[in-house]
Amino acid sequence: MAYQLLKGKRGIISGALNEDSIAWKIAERAHEEGATFTLTNAPLAMRMGEINHLAEKCGAKVIGADATSIEDLEKLYDESIEFLGGPIDFVLHSIGMSTNIRKGREYGDLNYEWFLKSLDVSALSFHKMLQVAQKKDAIAQGGSVVALSYIAAQRSFPDYTDMAQAKAMLESIARSYGYHYGKAKGVRINTVSQSPTKTTAGTGISGFNAFYEYANQMSPLGNATADECADYVITLFSDLTRKVTMQNLFHDGGFSCVGISEEIVEKMEKQ
Amino acid sequence: MAYQLLKGKRGIISGALNEDSIAWKIAERAHEEGATFTLTNAPLAMRMGEINHLAEKCGAKVIGADATSIEDLEKLYDESIEFLGGPIDFVLHSIGMSTNIRKGREYGDLNYEWFLKSLDVSALSFHKMLQVAQKKDAIAQGGSVVALSYIAAQRSFPDYTDMAQAKAMLESIARSYGYHYGKAKGVRINTVSQSPTKTTAGTGISGFNAFYEYANQMSPLGNATADECADYVITLFSDLTRKVTMQNLFHDGGFSCVGISEEIVEKMEKQ
Amino acid sequence: MAYQLLKGKRGIISGALNEDSIAWKIAERAHEEGATFTLTNAPLAMRMGEINHLAEKCGAKVIGADATSIEDLEKLYDESIEFLGGPIDFVLHSIGMSTNIRKGREYGDLNYEWFLKSLDVSALSFHKMLQVAQKKDAIAQGGSVVALSYIAAQRSFPDYTDMAQAKAMLESIARSYGYHYGKAKGVRINTVSQSPTKTTAGTGISGFNAFYEYANQMSPLGNATADECADYVITLFSDLTRKVTMQNLFHDGGFSCVGISEEIVEKMEKQ
Amino acid sequence: MAYQLLKGKRGIISGALNEDSIAWKIAERAHEEGATFTLTNAPLAMRMGEINHLAEKCGAKVIGADATSIEDLEKLYDESIEFLGGPIDFVLHSIGMSTNIRKGREYGDLNYEWFLKSLDVSALSFHKMLQVAQKKDAIAQGGSVVALSYIAAQRSFPDYTDMAQAKAMLESIARSYGYHYGKAKGVRINTVSQSPTKTTAGTGISGFNAFYEYANQMSPLGNATADECADYVITLFSDLTRKVTMQNLFHDGGFSCVGISEEIVEKMEKQ
Repeated sequence: MAYQLLKGKRGIISGALNEDSIAWKIAERAHEEGATFTLTNAPLAMRMGEINHLAEKCGAKVIGADATSIEDLEKLYDESIEFLGGPIDFVLHSIGMSTNIRKGREYGDLNYEWFLKSLDVSALSFHKMLQVAQKKDAIAQGGSVVALSYIAAQRSFPDYTDMAQAKAMLESIARSYGYHYGKAKGVRINTVSQSPTKTTAGTGISGFNAFYEYANQMSPLGNATADECADYVITLFSDLTRKVTMQNLFHDGGFSCVGISEEIVEKMEKQ
Repeated sequence: MAYQLLKGKRGIISGALNEDSIAWKIAERAHEEGATFTLTNAPLAMRMGEINHLAEKCGAKVIGADATSIEDLEKLYDESIEFLGGPIDFVLHSIGMSTNIRKGREYGDLNYEWFLKSLDVSALSFHKMLQVAQKKDAIAQGGSVVALSYIAAQRSFPDYTDMAQAKAMLESIARSYGYHYGKAKGVRINTVSQSPTKTTAGTGISGFNAFYEYANQMSPLGNATADECADYVITLFSDLTRKVTMQNLFHDGGFSCVGISEEIVEKMEKQ
Repeated sequence: MAYQLLKGKRGIISGALNEDSIAWKIAERAHEEGATFTLTNAPLAMRMGEINHLAEKCGAKVIGADATSIEDLEKLYDESIEFLGGPIDFVLHSIGMSTNIRKGREYGDLNYEWFLKSLDVSALSFHKMLQVAQKKDAIAQGGSVVALSYIAAQRSFPDYTDMAQAKAMLESIARSYGYHYGKAKGVRINTVSQSPTKTTAGTGISGFNAFYEYANQMSPLGNATADECADYVITLFSDLTRKVTMQNLFHDGGFSCVGISEEIVEKMEKQ
Repeated sequence: MAYQLLKGKRGIISGALNEDSIAWKIAERAHEEGATFTLTNAPLAMRMGEINHLAEKCGAKVIGADATSIEDLEKLYDESIEFLGGPIDFVLHSIGMSTNIRKGREYGDLNYEWFLKSLDVSALSFHKMLQVAQKKDAIAQGGSVVALSYIAAQRSFPDYTDMAQAKAMLESIARSYGYHYGKAKGVRINTVSQSPTKTTAGTGISGFNAFYEYANQMSPLGNATADECADYVITLFSDLTRKVTMQNLFHDGGFSCVGISEEIVEKMEKQ
């Protein structure tokens, strides 16, 4: 169902790799809710081409940008504002990559160049998106910025390695920049800490199925899906949440607040 | 602006004392968003009569109920379901009272009968509203329950005395019952931790103006108003937040995540 | 090993039911570390007699007191100060009881008189111990007060029922009273959130073995034992932690910060 | 007073720049408590020479090491183990540097090379210290590692800029590595979040005096001093805290749990 919650709003959505992506679902929902926006992704990811179908469906323009490049980000804002006809009302950061995870490096054997790269791509890019925006005064008064995070920022997951630090840093940026951009222009900045989700990025982590299933059994409402995450993010982009800022918001079916569930009790008792 | 976010939904809203009340604003917004609901308050508060104007405006029925009385709560659900024509989709708990605060008792000189009464009225009533509902199967699959809280649950405010414990307990009930009702029927339960708000209840606390102003100067977006809180609660009652549960959600202009603001730095430097 | 960390200090230790009790271990360690103290328990628990062996071993006096009774608590402080020869340097609150748990009542079927009793015995008693102390000026400048808590205050455990709320309230009292007593007399007040422990109280909770084993497999250092908890509490009573206050300190082998452990991953993968 | 809490323990202490440094105080206290250790610092900082006086006083060896250099860290452990005659029981990480802060760059105008350098020096160095240690099996079973942090990891302080992210990442490393090293060898890893402290590093931050004074007036026990921090860290290095791990421990006179203090209320009321 659609409500026109984002009617007339202009946005930038990053990270829509394919139709499993949370960002993809957010783009679809933003379109249904009346927003216009540009889509952006790293040139490498975009070569896969699927994003053009999404763009067509949503009347969006695709603008390739390496989110670690100031120059690319400047171009992203310039072209977005030109295409959309005005300043940006909402921005989605859905960017993460760890070569240490891809290469299966253990936490006690991390490559530090890759580690810094993980931080640059997955977290510092968020600061860059905001700093470039603010310098250009690209975000409209009262705009809303959301980045996607994961509870590994608070708790240890053995195979999440350097992405845990990247997510902790991402959430910290939301708090710091939320203060500064909030005072400067009423822009609110939050992170959404989503259930494990069966996306290309998620399923690339070793042991994903186990902790997906575990989270599902721990959460009284089950894991939140990408579609549900899209719904939630829409509310954060809307005018109904204008005083929510600097928060990390769990969208996880309750997982973060469960000590143990009956399903896990049963599993333990079977031993 | 209205979006029909609650179209066809049935609710129960407690705590609308007068037009300054957050609950009052929520009722108005829920009406605009297409919901039908009943209004409830303690018989004492209701004698003030203003609630009838609100009821008339919203097409609501007023049902007096002492939220500490199981019998009254049973009646509340029975009559609400009868009036609304079906099970309840959303419930607002906005109930709090401390005789220790009213009488100006200091934290080191609390009356323990009043303390237990504060807990019963302000927190245990939330459990009662949920237990009575669940026993009657009064809340629809996927329903949403919200209680209003305050950051005194996490941090000490000198004059908030026993209400700090009541709010800590209230938020704990949301986590515990969120687990149980979530598993049983997909019902989500959250608390919203709101900025200090100029309501009849809020302004009754000693030193209110000081911490209202302090919070306002600490929060990059300023204090959230009752109207903005109503907007936010509407999103939590809507179908767009179906996997958010057991959370305490700060709706505070960023206050909870600010260590110090430039305004307070200036104040300190003036000394 | 002993270090004379509490040499010359005077204390009150509640809750030493039998030699499995954490409070019992704390008493033994406090004695080793050079403290003198009184032991207190509810008259009912004390009839079991074992506490006299502990008292003898530690040169302690046993003073029966119902921790919900102001009169009993006044007597406790008066007699303790008289016996110990001066004001109190440390206090342990290790008191908890839930009739709802004892009787196996589910969270959706709680008895509310018992619920209020749980709160009164398990949490409000902590406030009473502090308020009575402060009115009598019974705690020495810079004294240390510790209450034992459990992570059910933050996360839902299906069978912990109303004790979750009692622990949330207990921790909230530590924050509120920590502020007031800290300003008034430099007294610090903290809670220690301990691993599930095989005490008489702990094992009385349905499903205890399952969540004990689960916690053990989730915690990188395994569950903390009662002996280890005693060691930790000694540091909090000592002069080495004089600026730690209003905190809830997890003593849990890391449980609180683990999202999933390799053991649980394996368990999930076996399915 | 000394208790021989660290008798026979071997350690590595980083960050003792001069006698105002928290690390300096920790070294002095560790010496009093019976430990032997090596001191390390960046070659640049060491040229100041004062560290040699400390080393002499404590019978310590000084080993220069750039904490971002794997090679230097390998040398640090090798030489420390050789000098101390066995594996390391405790490690202090007290390393932080931000060129963005030094140069007075605002949060919306950060230099990203410096930002990555801040992360590398102030946070990634912690991972490196641990990874090098684990690869060499340099830390004894049950060892204890502490890093010094600040509440800017949780809340926004306008002038703390990129160090907020560095501290958030530092604390995240403690959680992640605490899991892995805990399972592997019972090593516990924690961060201590200390009050603003009048060290060379602390006072270099713009507006330091204001937020020092603010914190002091907000904290019921006042700000914790470097000496008090040293006492606290000693307890964490001792055998009395063997099941405390992965925690961020506030050592702040209560600041983290205060919403507003009477002093600040008065200040607000004066306006």
